[in-house]
Amino acid sequence: MMGGMTHELFRRHEKTLDRALTAIRERTYWSAYPESPSPKVYGETAAADGAAAFQALLGREFPLDQPGTVDTVATEASPFGIDLGVRYPHADVDALLAAASAALPAWRDAGPQTRTGVCIEILDRLHKNVFELANAVQMTTGQAFVMAFQAGGPHALDRALEAIAYAYAEMTRTPAGATWEKPAKGEPVRMSKTFHVVPRGIALVVGCNTFPTWNSWPGLFASLATGNPVVVKPHPRAVLPLAITVRHAREVLAEAGFDPNLVTLAVEAPGEGLASTLATRPEVRIVDFTGSTEYGDWLEANARQAVVFTEKAGVNTVVVDSTDDFTGMCRNIAFSLCLYSGQMCTTPQNILVPADGIDTDQGRKSFDEVAAGIAGAVGKLTGDPARAVEVIGAIVNDGVLERLDKARGTGEVVLDSREVAHPAYGNAVVRTPMMVKLGADDVDVYGTEWFGPISFLIATGSTTQSLELFRKTVGVKGALTASVYSADQAVLDEAETAAMEAGVHLSANLTGGVFVNQSAAFSDFHASGGNPAANATLTDAAYVASRFRVVQSRRHI
Amino acid sequence: MMGGMTHELFRRHEKTLDRALTAIRERTYWSAYPESPSPKVYGETAAADGAAAFQALLGREFPLDQPGTVDTVATEASPFGIDLGVRYPHADVDALLAAASAALPAWRDAGPQTRTGVCIEILDRLHKNVFELANAVQMTTGQAFVMAFQAGGPHALDRALEAIAYAYAEMTRTPAGATWEKPAKGEPVRMSKTFHVVPRGIALVVGCNTFPTWNSWPGLFASLATGNPVVVKPHPRAVLPLAITVRHAREVLAEAGFDPNLVTLAVEAPGEGLASTLATRPEVRIVDFTGSTEYGDWLEANARQAVVFTEKAGVNTVVVDSTDDFTGMCRNIAFSLCLYSGQMCTTPQNILVPADGIDTDQGRKSFDEVAAGIAGAVGKLTGDPARAVEVIGAIVNDGVLERLDKARGTGEVVLDSREVAHPAYGNAVVRTPMMVKLGADDVDVYGTEWFGPISFLIATGSTTQSLELFRKTVGVKGALTASVYSADQAVLDEAETAAMEAGVHLSANLTGGVFVNQSAAFSDFHASGGNPAANATLTDAAYVASRFRVVQSRRHI
Repeated sequence: MMGGMTHELFRRHEKTLDRALTAIRERTYWSAYPESPSPKVYGETAAADGAAAFQALLGREFPLDQPGTVDTVATEASPFGIDLGVRYPHADVDALLAAASAALPAWRDAGPQTRTGVCIEILDRLHKNVFELANAVQMTTGQAFVMAFQAGGPHALDRALEAIAYAYAEMTRTPAGATWEKPAKGEPVRMSKTFHVVPRGIALVVGCNTFPTWNSWPGLFASLATGNPVVVKPHPRAVLPLAITVRHAREVLAEAGFDPNLVTLAVEAPGEGLASTLATRPEVRIVDFTGSTEYGDWLEANARQAVVFTEKAGVNTVVVDSTDDFTGMCRNIAFSLCLYSGQMCTTPQNILVPADGIDTDQGRKSFDEVAAGIAGAVGKLTGDPARAVEVIGAIVNDGVLERLDKARGTGEVVLDSREVAHPAYGNAVVRTPMMVKLGADDVDVYGTEWFGPISFLIATGSTTQSLELFRKTVGVKGALTASVYSADQAVLDEAETAAMEAGVHLSANLTGGVFVNQSAAFSDFHASGGNPAANATLTDAAYVASRFRVVQSRRHI
Repeated sequence: MMGGMTHELFRRHEKTLDRALTAIRERTYWSAYPESPSPKVYGETAAADGAAAFQALLGREFPLDQPGTVDTVATEASPFGIDLGVRYPHADVDALLAAASAALPAWRDAGPQTRTGVCIEILDRLHKNVFELANAVQMTTGQAFVMAFQAGGPHALDRALEAIAYAYAEMTRTPAGATWEKPAKGEPVRMSKTFHVVPRGIALVVGCNTFPTWNSWPGLFASLATGNPVVVKPHPRAVLPLAITVRHAREVLAEAGFDPNLVTLAVEAPGEGLASTLATRPEVRIVDFTGSTEYGDWLEANARQAVVFTEKAGVNTVVVDSTDDFTGMCRNIAFSLCLYSGQMCTTPQNILVPADGIDTDQGRKSFDEVAAGIAGAVGKLTGDPARAVEVIGAIVNDGVLERLDKARGTGEVVLDSREVAHPAYGNAVVRTPMMVKLGADDVDVYGTEWFGPISFLIATGSTTQSLELFRKTVGVKGALTASVYSADQAVLDEAETAAMEAGVHLSANLTGGVFVNQSAAFSDFHASGGNPAANATLTDAAYVASRFRVVQSRRHI
């Protein structure tokens, strides 16, 4: 039933897989896909070729030959103000799911090795088209190019490979077969046992607007590697990166002799509610979602026939107690706030600082001096428009602009948001970060997520109160990241216990080139599943183990 | 934070753990606890000592010193008709949960090794008291003594150890720490990372009437090993085996220097709805349940703050196509039906046989001859009361008797149920198995579970139709076991595919001393999580991986 001979694609990628398996055991530094978009790494023409491939997709029907297409739909609008105008196939749900179901048996029977080899080959294909993807990510999300390249390309590929490695490890923990021999009077009782890795059914991936590939690929490949056909439902404003993903995946699957309908694209027409329709279909047995808390909670409550993995909103927090590198601290926090205009799910929002100031290597700093230090560093990063836009990118949608306006009225504005004219894209919507000063009592403001370039400097009674507020807000609303600055080991230990109990990953004293918003695949975990911001981790065993079941048979020998 | 020196109890049990870890990787035969109650294995006085320890508990207050006890409650009635009269502490839920919560931090901080060592020490303690437990299991469930000893003792201990081994493997997959060193221009970026294993919170185990230890221990120890305090809520009619469990666990925990409130007993007063109260408390983050489909579904829908593992009802099925050992087949199926009066969640219910008969080593057998063959074998096993009761035990509760009466009217009775006078227990309620003949169309009867000594011989148009009905009924209602009899390899292969797709474990051509109702720890999986009868497997990685979370911290070196 399972396997047979080793598939050529498994042999081709076996070394990569082995290295990835070592990485997830050690969780030290490793990366399979170079993060520098430099021509020295990717070749002199790669960037231009990728940009041309991207341009060739605009203003026309997206080339995707999948079943059940009834008409086309175009829903994207670039934050950089360029015309995208790509028309995507709009599918009949019944036809799409029927095609996915029909593709399952042969993929299941191919076994863990072959599926793993094919999945890594798809990553390779995506990597070969990484500049095309980077342009698509940039223009749909508003990320600056380098970030779109890195987070949307190599970093997303690393996370996907990490998920595949966990899936492979999990599927092969139980042997494909065993001989059971129980001692007995006279002859032992002997049985031959077979253990089948059986997929759950169809998997649905619901993508988000800001990180269409990085947030979708781990679930996509974890489900696919474990034998489940995957329906990819992109965010209506960030379809292209996932359409490209689906197209390349289908090509590789067909080349490897499998039904390309193992990976299909489901693009929704405005107001259609396609994600809800798909997520509650009985054939859909796995759902991966990144997006709002409201909709994530709805999926968990309503897609009861499926295993549901959600990443939702949270209140990421920085606890500032003291520092022996004030300049480094301010610069590091400022960069975290600026990066992609605070539109990362990992961007800090609440910066808790004692009202009576902190000890630093530059002497005592008052609360206002700390605020001024961070605001000043933000100012430096955003002063020159040409340099600024390479960090802050563009604003992903109008909701963020409305939130910025609303935030202005919540407290004393320490640093106001400014419009920036993008030197290259005249119609781009660009805004610099806003910082607002609040008191510890303003929990009705800072106790929920204000997605976008909005952060709150919160004056607390003491670091002890900061840690209390940290536990409380993260306990209620969740968080994906937390960081602490202190020169006092006891405070660092206390913060570590608080973070552990709140279930949020903690970074301590980041003053250099590592930022709290960034997690390194194969080493850092993204989200913990231990607080309301997410019910799963990217990526660990729990993220893959329930995507398939082991079904056994036994007979006497 | 984690660990420190290796705990003495980890060192003591490290070899056992290592062997168990090998067993779950290989899934060949292994057992840690001898299944024979023979004096040669357990010593000349063990049986009598255990019986005396059990007797000493009857008719009095159960010795358990735990917080929040407000009064006592006695709810048991033995199927063997003896007076139990044990009064259990009846706890205030708030006090119990507060005590469990308070016990968590030190247990969490003890780390995976120490917790694993303590858990295996608890198993050792339970093993030392296995005859006391066996008596308690027998007298609360109605199992015959040898079965109560084996399933309630060594086999349950093996399953618990299996769960602990999976938990240990899972917790130690991620290292406790790592040094991350990313190449950079000039000096590499170096960070030190710590990975904490963090329990989810309080775990609730809801026990069942028929297998109070076997079905409860895996969840109990999987949760405890991964750092969660456990509240054990027994079935009101089978409290004693779990009360004994809790008492010994608390003793070991206290001796090892931990808070005994890591394991507590929650006994409900009639009509109190204690399981529902506990399962929906915010502090309770894991629920393990064995019992009815109705209540299991309720828990899954309502205990939304928790991870819920359920084992519910199903329609276990035997597909009879042909056999080269007619006598062995009839004897094997008959024993499966007789064992504990069909009151195992794994007992076959639906026996699908072509209406025009089957080919056998004794020539063609008509449907009625197949029915007569199995009925005759049941008759042989139950003819002599003294021998019969050692197989069929007693009827666990009145619901089973009512169902027997109702089943009599569903079709042609092939073999009626008889009352048997128990030679040792005058008030025991003993009944022999009933077999009823149905047609393929009677799916409204055989399509649901008839828990108890009730099986249906169903006349189908062909083996092809049998396999269709098998897929359909198991798809809708689930099953924990399935078996097939065929001398035709093609039919066996078809049955294997059908079982894989229905998500149920299959046994083929059992004609000897292995029965479909039995699963061997460390080799066979119990339930698959792939059909409606259960959402989890005993035991695999998915069963343990989400009982804890990994929360990391990182700082520059």
